[in-house]
Amino acid sequence: MSFGTKLMSAVHRNDSLVCVGLDPELRKLPQHLRGMPDPIASFCRQIIDRTKDLVCAYKPNLAFYESLGPAGITSLERILADIPSHIPVILDAKRGDIGNTAAQYARFLFEILNGDAVTVNPYMGSDSLEPFLQFQDRGVFVVALTSNSGAKDLQMLTSGGKPLYMHVVNLVNRLNTHGNAGLVVGATQASELTAIRRIIPAEMPLLIPGIGAQGGDLRMAIECGCNSLGEGAVVNSSRGILYASAGEDFAEKAAQATLELRDAINNIRRKE
Amino acid sequence: MSFGTKLMSAVHRNDSLVCVGLDPELRKLPQHLRGMPDPIASFCRQIIDRTKDLVCAYKPNLAFYESLGPAGITSLERILADIPSHIPVILDAKRGDIGNTAAQYARFLFEILNGDAVTVNPYMGSDSLEPFLQFQDRGVFVVALTSNSGAKDLQMLTSGGKPLYMHVVNLVNRLNTHGNAGLVVGATQASELTAIRRIIPAEMPLLIPGIGAQGGDLRMAIECGCNSLGEGAVVNSSRGILYASAGEDFAEKAAQATLELRDAINNIRRKE
Repeated sequence: MSFGTKLMSAVHRNDSLVCVGLDPELRKLPQHLRGMPDPIASFCRQIIDRTKDLVCAYKPNLAFYESLGPAGITSLERILADIPSHIPVILDAKRGDIGNTAAQYARFLFEILNGDAVTVNPYMGSDSLEPFLQFQDRGVFVVALTSNSGAKDLQMLTSGGKPLYMHVVNLVNRLNTHGNAGLVVGATQASELTAIRRIIPAEMPLLIPGIGAQGGDLRMAIECGCNSLGEGAVVNSSRGILYASAGEDFAEKAAQATLELRDAINNIRRKE
Repeated sequence: MSFGTKLMSAVHRNDSLVCVGLDPELRKLPQHLRGMPDPIASFCRQIIDRTKDLVCAYKPNLAFYESLGPAGITSLERILADIPSHIPVILDAKRGDIGNTAAQYARFLFEILNGDAVTVNPYMGSDSLEPFLQFQDRGVFVVALTSNSGAKDLQMLTSGGKPLYMHVVNLVNRLNTHGNAGLVVGATQASELTAIRRIIPAEMPLLIPGIGAQGGDLRMAIECGCNSLGEGAVVNSSRGILYASAGEDFAEKAAQATLELRDAINNIRRKE
């Protein structure tokens, strides 16, 4: 099954565009978990158990596991094993290197960790993306536009009348011969999201990070980021869900936060 | 001791601008090593043992270790322990993420693996680079210009009369308040390398990958990449050294290839 099919199947099954970012930090875990043998795996297991019927994907960011050394990768493997097989996993790695080196990263992410999709960095160009895109049944989200303050340093530079990130979108369109590419697009401005959605295939998913359940950002992201079917956006939330409570009720509160975000998104989708 | 001081000390001690890229691949190792308990660590240990008086740095690329799962990171830790403490280690990771996530990667590379320097990707802008640059005693090589075919897709796009990679160089200059930044610059054309060297501080190191001991590329890289003291370039070679022989004499042949590259570089430096 292709990543796109698996993603849409989870979207429909759980009626959700919410992706939960599994980015655990030891110092932020509830006190009662910290003495356990593998606290971040225990933490994520309970989050997954309570949110698995509310999400369309999970997205672990590799940095949070690598920062714990080899044991962190082992924890990640345990967490991935806890995710039901019908929910796709997006490994947020933002790798970017060339040729044989990119192939090694692809092997790690797709074969060792068995991710359904990854995020990658486009700076080194087509031959840094192709080793990932060659895995036809996996998804490849290319970082195009982010919402951090540094995004203006390069992504917003204009070349030939177009901002750099639109050149990235065009490059991804050109390389997307297997139909397995996606884009990472921060919810910055409606005009940017609309311009991107206009030139990509309707089925290309946009991974939209860093949005809470409140505020106009969410409405804009859904209205401008979804295709005409009200689909095609994957809205990631990490901290707002993982740390909704610092107490023993953390998983219950995480589920509640996920449900609220899912329903807020669906209310916007249904009104369109 | 700062990374710059450690690097220059190794350059002078070994009279060398050669960096050996420690990118081991199981399928390329000499047959007699493959049955050993940790073949890539055995392989690299012998390479290090025979080249440690000929190099100014070692550069493991993380992809080659991650592709082996958690055991690969353990192998890398063993290899790093085998590198003499006076030779700097550049961890080629090309990470690029923001804020807290970048800080997690920095923690992994600088604190868990204890690298002297890292490579990072600039696409997400200043707040993706600063968490690395804040480690004032470590080096941060920002990918600016690469020599792969895909480099033209984005790096060569012109904005405001300057190619994107020159915007990256300017950004790095601006962020280099601790004097610990470097650049990754492929040996592509003399004019490009000269233009970069002209606008950066003399002491800023350029990490130049992918050059063999023969050909005009090396002369151009040294003539245009070094500062007026004939220093400031770090010339990386991986496969040409690691796989100089596929037999039991692999480490001896690797040392020979390293020596040849060192001397070829020094001949160019001394004639300037």
